[in-house]
Amino acid sequence: MTRSPLASPFPDLPAVAGVRVAVARARYKTWDRADLTYVALDEGTAVAGVTTRSKCPSPEVEWCRAALTLGHARALVVNAGNSNAFTGSRGRAAVEAIAARVAGATGCRPSDVFVASTGVIGVPLPIDKAEAGIDAVLTAPEASWEEAAAAISTTDTFPKGAIARAVVGGRTVDLVGIVKGSGMIAPDMATMLGFIFTDAAIDPALLQTMLAAANIRSFSCITVDSDTSTSDTVLAFATGAAGNAPLTTMDDAGADAFQAALTDLCTQLAHLVVRDGEGATKFVTVQVDGAVSDESARIVALSIANSPLVKTAIAGEDANWGRVVMAVGKAGEPAERDKLAIRFGATQVARDGLAVEGYDEAPVAAHLKGSDIEIGVDLGLGDGRATVWTCDLTHGYISINADYRS
Amino acid sequence: MTRSPLASPFPDLPAVAGVRVAVARARYKTWDRADLTYVALDEGTAVAGVTTRSKCPSPEVEWCRAALTLGHARALVVNAGNSNAFTGSRGRAAVEAIAARVAGATGCRPSDVFVASTGVIGVPLPIDKAEAGIDAVLTAPEASWEEAAAAISTTDTFPKGAIARAVVGGRTVDLVGIVKGSGMIAPDMATMLGFIFTDAAIDPALLQTMLAAANIRSFSCITVDSDTSTSDTVLAFATGAAGNAPLTTMDDAGADAFQAALTDLCTQLAHLVVRDGEGATKFVTVQVDGAVSDESARIVALSIANSPLVKTAIAGEDANWGRVVMAVGKAGEPAERDKLAIRFGATQVARDGLAVEGYDEAPVAAHLKGSDIEIGVDLGLGDGRATVWTCDLTHGYISINADYRS
Repeated sequence: MTRSPLASPFPDLPAVAGVRVAVARARYKTWDRADLTYVALDEGTAVAGVTTRSKCPSPEVEWCRAALTLGHARALVVNAGNSNAFTGSRGRAAVEAIAARVAGATGCRPSDVFVASTGVIGVPLPIDKAEAGIDAVLTAPEASWEEAAAAISTTDTFPKGAIARAVVGGRTVDLVGIVKGSGMIAPDMATMLGFIFTDAAIDPALLQTMLAAANIRSFSCITVDSDTSTSDTVLAFATGAAGNAPLTTMDDAGADAFQAALTDLCTQLAHLVVRDGEGATKFVTVQVDGAVSDESARIVALSIANSPLVKTAIAGEDANWGRVVMAVGKAGEPAERDKLAIRFGATQVARDGLAVEGYDEAPVAAHLKGSDIEIGVDLGLGDGRATVWTCDLTHGYISINADYRS
Repeated sequence: MTRSPLASPFPDLPAVAGVRVAVARARYKTWDRADLTYVALDEGTAVAGVTTRSKCPSPEVEWCRAALTLGHARALVVNAGNSNAFTGSRGRAAVEAIAARVAGATGCRPSDVFVASTGVIGVPLPIDKAEAGIDAVLTAPEASWEEAAAAISTTDTFPKGAIARAVVGGRTVDLVGIVKGSGMIAPDMATMLGFIFTDAAIDPALLQTMLAAANIRSFSCITVDSDTSTSDTVLAFATGAAGNAPLTTMDDAGADAFQAALTDLCTQLAHLVVRDGEGATKFVTVQVDGAVSDESARIVALSIANSPLVKTAIAGEDANWGRVVMAVGKAGEPAERDKLAIRFGATQVARDGLAVEGYDEAPVAAHLKGSDIEIGVDLGLGDGRATVWTCDLTHGYISINADYRS
């Protein structure tokens, strides 16, 4: 797989106190690379998570949802190459076997073990390979964040990680995250998985609230192809090793700073996913202002970001703002044609329901030749606003998904 | 533009009593072809229509909506090459000028004149070209249905028409239709326009009810790329020249037969639009059964039909049923993973939430090599069912929409 032209280098990421990472070769596919990632978490680690809203979720998603209600974690296992989705009772048995194996070896409870899998759908995860992989990873040397980011990947073209920091109660806490995929980007139903680790001390219920708030502004605001996976999962683990006075409410000193850092981290990770969108050559920011609510703005922005005609126009560096009008119109949200304004980059192209007088396409054409594209829409109705991110739709997307035989 | 490999020959269509068709060259674009279509309708012609649900409709759509409330028509003008959408007051003025010109020349009221336009967005329709075209078309010789179907086209690769018949009160009535486009298929926001003509006598309110019922089973059940145009319009005109006792309620003798013929005609026309979908190489039928309601089934079927990953899998002749599971899961409608069954053609591939025992891919692979593909999904929840039609997503779509500079 050719590395995405929008790829970023992997950043320097520090170890997070209370977190130990290792990888192993379970050989879920016929490849010679690490595909099982294990993260050991110190006693007292809080956990929060958001998962796919698919009506056909994987058994891993169901397992994590149940475990998240308890709020505590001691281990994370990530399998790459097989999503274990749509596999009935055999799939559920595989997840239970993994949790039991880890619990038996480490003395924690099975419900302290979080499991995520990504890859082909409809093939039960082979329990023998998973158990052998776990046995190997438990005695493996510590791995780097970059090795872990690579081991959780499937058809990703580069490993993805990010960092943010916040000062909480006089202590600086680190937030480190790794992520793979880009919605339903991969030929075999591989998915978006994100894992965040922090040494902050924070109550799991508050962490859940903060993660949900960060998610709605980040992972829920990206799209590559509008296809939602059966396994999307983002988990956040907080070990408490930083020794700050534990955060328990949004009123605590440092809670706002931690929320800002968490949202920043999730946004960085979400952007990396878009930058590895299948066939992507342009990173596109869609900003909608003037909607009747923030949620309405998000729906309109996603309608634009998911429109095949908008995405192909961007791929063709075509200032076809009529397609943006079309995408606003089809969103189903409140919009008034004669109040609508549209810009590409800094150039206004339409206002009050028609093209601006003396519209000069040259600066727009120049903007579209770049790799970072911005589309701005003002609905002129209220204060609702949202930003979403996507990529263009190119021959590369078709090649990856139609020319490839799964 | 290469003729679609799924194209059908234009059928033999009879004249419809009370209807006279002519075409002219208004030269809305720099092309040498007829691009203005005029249909004269006898006094007493009833009309019904369905239009786009876009929040940014063209002034033509707004004009037709207002005129439809009166229920009567004497003329139809269709402009190809310029949709006149998103053009503010200048666009509205162009529509009013067209209606006034026809009314002045023929003695009807402006509100008896229906107008539809298709083509580039954001450019006001030139009133001088429209008026000159109308003057020319009013004295032009009668045109054939095929000439009219060609004149309303933009980037269509073949002209599209169909016929259906019904016996109403002992008289056989004809229903003839022409159609252009395929959703938002064209580079310049060209759109779907459909026009139906019948010599049946029918009350406009009943015709409206029947057209709406036919539409929800036909035009509202097709998708090429999920992009909804600003100008979609389907109008049905009934001249009454067949001399049947006028239909006024669904209880009248022949009403059921007419409804069936109208739905049949709309379905034929809708299929033709899909067969000219940009880049299409496969005609795809998605049948969903076992949903909690017909509307729920339609939403699930459209989620499958709009999924880029399902559509690219079909283009690649790949029996990737996991992508169908994904598309069911993301639809947001009631679905239970462990009751879900999926088939390709006549071959069951998954049942009760997992692959069927001993699944043999060979007959599925053979089915996918054909040009008519069928995907069947049974949700196992209720009696709701729906059928939608789409095409595959290929390099051809990207070439047409990204490589082309508007």
